[in-house]
Amino acid sequence: MSINSFGHLFRVTTWGESHGPALGATVDGCPPGVAIDEATLQHWLDKRKPGQNKFTTQRREADAVKILSGVFEGQTTGTPVQLMIENTDQRSKDYSEIKDKFRPGHADITYFQKYGIRDYRGGGRSSARETAARVAAGGLARAAIASLVAGVEITGYMVQMGPHKIDRDRFDWDEIVRNPFWVPDARAADEWASYLDGLRKSGSSVGAVIEVVARGVPAGLGAPVYGKLDTDLAAAMMSINAVKGVEIGEGMSAAMLTGELNADEITMGPDGPVYSSNHAGGILGGISTGQDIVLRFAVKPTSSILTARRTITKTGEETEIVTKGRHDPCVGIRAVPVGEAMMACVLLDHLLLHRGQVGENRGHIGESPA
Amino acid sequence: MSINSFGHLFRVTTWGESHGPALGATVDGCPPGVAIDEATLQHWLDKRKPGQNKFTTQRREADAVKILSGVFEGQTTGTPVQLMIENTDQRSKDYSEIKDKFRPGHADITYFQKYGIRDYRGGGRSSARETAARVAAGGLARAAIASLVAGVEITGYMVQMGPHKIDRDRFDWDEIVRNPFWVPDARAADEWASYLDGLRKSGSSVGAVIEVVARGVPAGLGAPVYGKLDTDLAAAMMSINAVKGVEIGEGMSAAMLTGELNADEITMGPDGPVYSSNHAGGILGGISTGQDIVLRFAVKPTSSILTARRTITKTGEETEIVTKGRHDPCVGIRAVPVGEAMMACVLLDHLLLHRGQVGENRGHIGESPA
Amino acid sequence: MSINSFGHLFRVTTWGESHGPALGATVDGCPPGVAIDEATLQHWLDKRKPGQNKFTTQRREADAVKILSGVFEGQTTGTPVQLMIENTDQRSKDYSEIKDKFRPGHADITYFQKYGIRDYRGGGRSSARETAARVAAGGLARAAIASLVAGVEITGYMVQMGPHKIDRDRFDWDEIVRNPFWVPDARAADEWASYLDGLRKSGSSVGAVIEVVARGVPAGLGAPVYGKLDTDLAAAMMSINAVKGVEIGEGMSAAMLTGELNADEITMGPDGPVYSSNHAGGILGGISTGQDIVLRFAVKPTSSILTARRTITKTGEETEIVTKGRHDPCVGIRAVPVGEAMMACVLLDHLLLHRGQVGENRGHIGESPA
Amino acid sequence: MSINSFGHLFRVTTWGESHGPALGATVDGCPPGVAIDEATLQHWLDKRKPGQNKFTTQRREADAVKILSGVFEGQTTGTPVQLMIENTDQRSKDYSEIKDKFRPGHADITYFQKYGIRDYRGGGRSSARETAARVAAGGLARAAIASLVAGVEITGYMVQMGPHKIDRDRFDWDEIVRNPFWVPDARAADEWASYLDGLRKSGSSVGAVIEVVARGVPAGLGAPVYGKLDTDLAAAMMSINAVKGVEIGEGMSAAMLTGELNADEITMGPDGPVYSSNHAGGILGGISTGQDIVLRFAVKPTSSILTARRTITKTGEETEIVTKGRHDPCVGIRAVPVGEAMMACVLLDHLLLHRGQVGENRGHIGESPA
Repeated sequence: MSINSFGHLFRVTTWGESHGPALGATVDGCPPGVAIDEATLQHWLDKRKPGQNKFTTQRREADAVKILSGVFEGQTTGTPVQLMIENTDQRSKDYSEIKDKFRPGHADITYFQKYGIRDYRGGGRSSARETAARVAAGGLARAAIASLVAGVEITGYMVQMGPHKIDRDRFDWDEIVRNPFWVPDARAADEWASYLDGLRKSGSSVGAVIEVVARGVPAGLGAPVYGKLDTDLAAAMMSINAVKGVEIGEGMSAAMLTGELNADEITMGPDGPVYSSNHAGGILGGISTGQDIVLRFAVKPTSSILTARRTITKTGEETEIVTKGRHDPCVGIRAVPVGEAMMACVLLDHLLLHRGQVGENRGHIGESPA
Repeated sequence: MSINSFGHLFRVTTWGESHGPALGATVDGCPPGVAIDEATLQHWLDKRKPGQNKFTTQRREADAVKILSGVFEGQTTGTPVQLMIENTDQRSKDYSEIKDKFRPGHADITYFQKYGIRDYRGGGRSSARETAARVAAGGLARAAIASLVAGVEITGYMVQMGPHKIDRDRFDWDEIVRNPFWVPDARAADEWASYLDGLRKSGSSVGAVIEVVARGVPAGLGAPVYGKLDTDLAAAMMSINAVKGVEIGEGMSAAMLTGELNADEITMGPDGPVYSSNHAGGILGGISTGQDIVLRFAVKPTSSILTARRTITKTGEETEIVTKGRHDPCVGIRAVPVGEAMMACVLLDHLLLHRGQVGENRGHIGESPA
Repeated sequence: MSINSFGHLFRVTTWGESHGPALGATVDGCPPGVAIDEATLQHWLDKRKPGQNKFTTQRREADAVKILSGVFEGQTTGTPVQLMIENTDQRSKDYSEIKDKFRPGHADITYFQKYGIRDYRGGGRSSARETAARVAAGGLARAAIASLVAGVEITGYMVQMGPHKIDRDRFDWDEIVRNPFWVPDARAADEWASYLDGLRKSGSSVGAVIEVVARGVPAGLGAPVYGKLDTDLAAAMMSINAVKGVEIGEGMSAAMLTGELNADEITMGPDGPVYSSNHAGGILGGISTGQDIVLRFAVKPTSSILTARRTITKTGEETEIVTKGRHDPCVGIRAVPVGEAMMACVLLDHLLLHRGQVGENRGHIGESPA
Repeated sequence: MSINSFGHLFRVTTWGESHGPALGATVDGCPPGVAIDEATLQHWLDKRKPGQNKFTTQRREADAVKILSGVFEGQTTGTPVQLMIENTDQRSKDYSEIKDKFRPGHADITYFQKYGIRDYRGGGRSSARETAARVAAGGLARAAIASLVAGVEITGYMVQMGPHKIDRDRFDWDEIVRNPFWVPDARAADEWASYLDGLRKSGSSVGAVIEVVARGVPAGLGAPVYGKLDTDLAAAMMSINAVKGVEIGEGMSAAMLTGELNADEITMGPDGPVYSSNHAGGILGGISTGQDIVLRFAVKPTSSILTARRTITKTGEETEIVTKGRHDPCVGIRAVPVGEAMMACVLLDHLLLHRGQVGENRGHIGESPA
């Protein structure tokens, strides 16, 4: 039940502070026999590494992941896997001036009120760096998924930056890895580059919407009501730092549809049911249909901006705060691999749960009963 | 860890099918000494009862809740409380024609694929009636919250029906209980009445957005990262039947904001910190700030409509389906008390978790250290 | 995580008080497609029913179990199964005199200290009647086990009553159901009948040791360290009312053995490994070996005896207490089917966990690697 | 729910293999504001360190614990604490000869059957070294308990080695730390020294019984039925490597008592209830009474002995095995601090659970109702 853990059978507990000696993830329940090594996990972390371009945090760090347990002769043993990333670039002095002030929009004030103690260096645990551990865990989850089911692909990309949305008609999967924003629309990539450059120079920041799609997921994952696949996905995405909304399929727009427009009609194909559309986002009644699972989450803008904001100190004095140093004009960019990692962790968890609860799907449409 | 349970210390497991003998909720972890009786719980259920007006399901039922355990001499004992609601009005024959067809947009097909067995009568467990159990559990949670903290108020209301949104400038708390939609805008109530009447006559249906506000919640609830208050709230709302999106505070719109516009500045008041705005929706870093907790969730339209839809049978034959009988033109209306109930359950759970984990808030702003 | 629930994937939450309207078990995670009905569960409950003989409580009750959910057309659906047993024979007046006194050896005093409220009628929830719900859940578990693995047999029997132990040389499986004590030793059955008769007449009571054996359990169940099969079995048995000790295999006597005597040597048979002995009780490193799983638990004597005992009242006054009315001279007799039920619940849970975590055993001794 | 985690609110997940790079414990849910540092934890580890005397494993290692997260400026922050112990002395070659044979009495065979992969070096995860992580976690738990409740003392000691038991009449608390066996009986210490020396020379091994007492524990800890304090204690002790039996209070001997002899009578003292005896071991109905909590667990003899034993290889060939190198003639000695650590972890967990569930005890005997 641990409050800092996530998952049921595939369980991830992240630990570590932004400016502590290290951070990591204790991953329990990974199925045995999964081939994994540090290089594979590093690949996923590098996707997230800041400093790749001028749009993300200027902070340089190695982000080198080590596997401390749970892997023997290149395979998981089924025992807990400890992933550790040492913090090598901390520059604590950037934050020392503001150790008694609460940054608006950050968890500084709520952490202090709750715990009476706050690691003020770089946001402590609530910092976006905590997500490095999640990305590492997600890399392990991806490998495990591949060992269980062939053909599952998880892809995340930005669909909105500030007020700017992509043009779905120009959607190009291949474009995603060609620009610094993981946006599947080449024109948007150009426009957003200028836009964000302007924001960065003015010390401002903006939010974003990230969409994550999982293709090739078998039908049947998720258990009714509270163990729903979409429930766990919503929780996973909402747990990412700075996320304020989550949608599955049509999402908030589902409210606007009528029943006729919303229903995904069903016909029969050679391999099973075929759906005429995917308003449901691949999940019906909390269980995967076999269609693409489509979700989106919104990330609010970074609060560490160079404009002075009114706030108070620990002792209740009113003051102003200006956060200098490194900051992200759009944390949404970094959230793309994190969203993918969470999708991977939840899907793996549900693949194991499904196998445990029912073994394999028991209802075969079109076949005579066993 | 049960997949059909919800909560950590205050844990609710719902059980029962729409057309089974009964349904209910096993509520575990309710603090002892809470004054509760069946009449109090019934009040919350009656708020949900269909047949109140012609806009909700025509199905008549008593929805009478019984307390079978966990209460002695009018107080909770701290042991599991079993709440049961017997099904008295079922009219199974309404559905018998379609027992081999999968209704598009429903969990019929996914349940069958996963379990190989499906209670086709009225949607079985995925039916909206399962929420009666949640509303009963929510009634108990409200009573428990009141025994722990004075002044917490939980109110839900509709802010959108189909394409129609309320006018926030006409927002009137008192209007909520005066119309059949729980909408805080008298003019919208009139407009929506006509709109929905038209939909009902044509056999169509529409979605909705419900907003739930919790006032008077103390700061400090929620634990960092995965045990965040917003994570549990998101999961709770997403678990409601037909929900496709969840937002906290600005929600999906947070993406559009710049850092300056999004930050809720902090000043000092006589009783503690005062926020200039509430874009955060009352939660920062997963922990409550003491501000109003504001969330919204979107409900997709009912799929049981009187228009024929293409689908397949269990044996894979293509066919059409028309669901006659009773249906909701807008299930969103019924989701309002359910959203309130889930808010109550999650808040109680976090009040207990907070008390267990830290006792009481340890950081007092403005006071000299203890 | 619920504190009143048990199990991981197959999860049982019992509810209900001895003198409340009903008691029962919410069973979540039962695999779908298991054939079950009330008569089958009733069989297991009848094994437990008091009044069968003069040695158990004189309390007469129907103990009729009802299935309120989770079963459709004779099969489990995979959704929560609600089992309910209504209390029909309560005779509250037996206890009313002592509602302000704490019975020594009972949970009366600790319940009151913790909760400030105590259902004094018949021991409330801590009463042995709560185990009726467990036995019902165990009946469901047995059916589910049979649907997963053929040939698993779970048998419990008494091996000690007070100071009297069975003679292992006279062990006879068939004798177990032929006497009122479920003791596999006909001579012991005779001796114990006289012994217990004497105790009953004098209003005294005595403890017992129950042994439960599970045969035909496949190797591989249990996860290392905390998710060990013996860990869960120990917890399950210790949770039974009045249990004070649990042993696996050699149990406490393992301390006396030397390494040579304790080691179960391994040879190879046609179907796999063969062990020369079973000091381990069928579990090595927390994982089943495929041998008989053998455990024992000790039940302390009933504290409700007809001799006056010194105690205090709720207001702290010293007094004496004599419990009249119905009582068990040896609750151990009733614990036999409960021990079997707990064994069944834990084994089913681990069969599902095993399937979820690894699928099926991956290491095949004697075969060339896959 | 993680299978390798332990606890509800204070949750410990151990990780790491005997011969991997490191091992450790992820401790989640430690209350904030607890003063802790590496030296304090090291104290508890040193108590466990092998090589202290010739009776424990000859393996030398630093066993230096590092705190990687969750502590800031000398206090816990309430976030996960990562404790890591690097493996510095491994001598893998000791085991390489036997990498394809299963040591009788070890988890080698069951691990292989379940996972198909086995870290054969030194017993991998099932090795007793895994308990170093538990002892470190226990050190943190002790500090947290002290911050919550004054006066709780947890002490473990041996009461039996092989067939030799201590003489309770010679019980001396001060003797415990003066001999290499933590036995509270000076004469037994002498006798056992000779006895064990003989065993060691012959390459044999023997089991032990360890008793752990917790004094000063407030009444009210534990929740009814499955969340019982004794249930969690039993699970905790049974999870220790090589444990085969657990007892609370009278334990297995409770079976032999009559009701009159077993009942702990109650009188009233200046500070509350006073019990005439403690057959219950400090727990009634799963809830602590305020008396000393007394438990015992039995450890089976080490299976790594210098005598040849019959076994099989991974490929099913019959063979013999002789384990040379380092081994423990009595692992029970090392289990003493582990038992203490588990007691500390469970008690802290229940202190937090109690606070979360009920706040503080609500029933005050002798006082007028609030």
